[in-house]
Amino acid sequence: MNAHIITIGDEILIGQTLNSNAADIGNKLVDIQIFVKKASIVADDETEIINEFKDCWDKNDLIIVTGGLGPTHDDVTRQCVVKFFNTELVEDQEVLDDVKKIFEKRGRKIDKINECQALVPKIATPIRNILGTAPGFYIEKDDKVFVVLPGVPAEMNYMMESFLIPKLKEKVGEIKSYSLRSNLLTTGIPESLLYKRLGNLKELLDGAKLAFLPNQFGVKMRITVKAETEILAKNKLLEIEQKIRGKVGRYIYSRTEETLEEVVGRLLTERELTISLAESCTGGLLSNLLTNVPGASKYFERGIISYGNSSKIEILKVKKQTLEKFGAVSEEVAIQMAEGVRNISKTNIGLSITGIMGPTGATTDKPVGLVYIGFCDDKTSTAKKFVFGEDRIINKHRTTQAALELIRRYILGIE
Amino acid sequence: MNAHIITIGDEILIGQTLNSNAADIGNKLVDIQIFVKKASIVADDETEIINEFKDCWDKNDLIIVTGGLGPTHDDVTRQCVVKFFNTELVEDQEVLDDVKKIFEKRGRKIDKINECQALVPKIATPIRNILGTAPGFYIEKDDKVFVVLPGVPAEMNYMMESFLIPKLKEKVGEIKSYSLRSNLLTTGIPESLLYKRLGNLKELLDGAKLAFLPNQFGVKMRITVKAETEILAKNKLLEIEQKIRGKVGRYIYSRTEETLEEVVGRLLTERELTISLAESCTGGLLSNLLTNVPGASKYFERGIISYGNSSKIEILKVKKQTLEKFGAVSEEVAIQMAEGVRNISKTNIGLSITGIMGPTGATTDKPVGLVYIGFCDDKTSTAKKFVFGEDRIINKHRTTQAALELIRRYILGIE
Repeated sequence: MNAHIITIGDEILIGQTLNSNAADIGNKLVDIQIFVKKASIVADDETEIINEFKDCWDKNDLIIVTGGLGPTHDDVTRQCVVKFFNTELVEDQEVLDDVKKIFEKRGRKIDKINECQALVPKIATPIRNILGTAPGFYIEKDDKVFVVLPGVPAEMNYMMESFLIPKLKEKVGEIKSYSLRSNLLTTGIPESLLYKRLGNLKELLDGAKLAFLPNQFGVKMRITVKAETEILAKNKLLEIEQKIRGKVGRYIYSRTEETLEEVVGRLLTERELTISLAESCTGGLLSNLLTNVPGASKYFERGIISYGNSSKIEILKVKKQTLEKFGAVSEEVAIQMAEGVRNISKTNIGLSITGIMGPTGATTDKPVGLVYIGFCDDKTSTAKKFVFGEDRIINKHRTTQAALELIRRYILGIE
Repeated sequence: MNAHIITIGDEILIGQTLNSNAADIGNKLVDIQIFVKKASIVADDETEIINEFKDCWDKNDLIIVTGGLGPTHDDVTRQCVVKFFNTELVEDQEVLDDVKKIFEKRGRKIDKINECQALVPKIATPIRNILGTAPGFYIEKDDKVFVVLPGVPAEMNYMMESFLIPKLKEKVGEIKSYSLRSNLLTTGIPESLLYKRLGNLKELLDGAKLAFLPNQFGVKMRITVKAETEILAKNKLLEIEQKIRGKVGRYIYSRTEETLEEVVGRLLTERELTISLAESCTGGLLSNLLTNVPGASKYFERGIISYGNSSKIEILKVKKQTLEKFGAVSEEVAIQMAEGVRNISKTNIGLSITGIMGPTGATTDKPVGLVYIGFCDDKTSTAKKFVFGEDRIINKHRTTQAALELIRRYILGIE
């Protein structure tokens, strides 16, 4: 099944909005063995949109369009659908009731603009929306499927899951060849070194595919295998993963899409360990990441954001002389911060972060990007030095990534 | 100038990576009055890529390609360029020196795989890379421009700014018609109500364009005007903005792309106010957002993440009886947290957040999504109740957005 995703919106072309919808749709289609070969983004322009519909209609069996379904004048997708399929708009009672219900729930009065959302192209089956007022459209014609979904991610995702995926699954029918993927997430090793350590790839992969996807925090290895049944594919995948782990296992922190904070949260929970955090330059980002994981209260009770020196002294009991002698960004202060937060929190682990994120704050001997991460348990206290780059936000993220990896390796006993 | 952006990579089609490059490029081109009409995403597949090159070559004057330039076997963009232009690879000494320098700087040994990055299509001018090892390619042929940039965002952005934008600016020459845009960011009012409040749009806009871009935190209004000179366009833009502000000004927190935390940071700095934060359920996200703003140390010295009850009692001096009587998620505890953090921090403002982010933690009378934001200055203490949705991460973000808007309205004296 040839599939194409069309995203509509000037805001995406001019860089004001990230195209998360195309990514989400692509991801969900993989689960039912539909692989998108191409996607496109088109401006809010009737001619451009209809041209793209024509072009995609000829080349594909499945076309999914998102965006441009809102109630205001700049949303033109619905009228493009009407023109392209040479159909007309008809009011759908069920959709109208849905729209009214949404307004009732929000305690707001409905007006004409909103009621117009119930006008649906005659050729289409409306896809109901419980999160917003714009319905989606499902059209089957000439053995092709053409679907239009709202641009608001939550609404689009709801319709994909509640309606489109089950519908397409039925249409696809029995699957003759299974393609399965897995991701091994690494951190702390560059792409080319990873590639080299794996050695002879042909031998290692035995027909499977391997892709390297680097970002600023690490390299993701994506393995793709094909087999006749799901079981065979799963076994082949596991076999290749084992071989890769044998060569670069210590750098792999996760399989599938588990984030590093989820891995750390899971490990802390499994080992029944508690942690407290003292963050200076990261300003709460590490605590925020750890508390994104449901159930974080099992291992995390408090964090101190000691952005200035007063709170380092008053709350964390860092010595004034240490601050004066070595400066706030130093190994010595990092250690005292970690010990301080562990003492007042009575946790197994105390972790601290102090550094210079930029753009200002550098001194002659301390550049932007300099970071110390302090770490202590009931036996020892240490601090590790890092030098990251120039960008404030990226530095905050690289620092927290390094801190999380430090916790992971500590728990697993990896050097 | 017809421009098209091609992003290459399976990872984008299957939803593992967001297409931030196409957005960044589109955004930068707007500054030099080049408007992208269409963009596409293509799989890591030679045939698909070359087909897309052909298709775009016929329809456009400027084609910008990103991705697939890495050193590993799954990066095929360079060989597609060679085939499409019927050219060959030649070693470029300058690029080779750049690659060697990068390895020296990182203290790593260079090998054959990395040296291959210096092979450049003969038809192209290499675009030098100081952040990574893959050079970009700039090709001019038949009065068309074809550019290939690496997929790593920082490297792509560096080449856009240091090389491509100046080069294209020169090529575009004198601009005959100026198109300018601005964004008015609103929060706390739904799209259809905003639309209604603006009244007769034709009269209001007088030929300009207005787009409504809603997301879960608010609605962005993008105004686009066209005029013969930059000054005329600017004046027209300001005139329309004034009219819009007259109708819905209290909901507008920002012009241009300033985020709400940047607005709040700027206001706190301008008024020389200081703030301290006590976060429970948001786990440090608000402190993180406020410290993303350079210069945050002027108004922010500390934050307490009191995720559990012990830290609320020990550090913030919340009364044990209050916790027992009303529960941690209550107006009373929110007020005591705000007062507590303000007392120990000696700031002008104390702000606290306590709530239930989900998926667990709800009780019979307190649902997931319930949040209290406490607020105090030297005169009064209050707490405001909110009920958000079911999603943990979205709840954290909506809560911090509401807290920031509360601070903004307090400083500006908006009811």
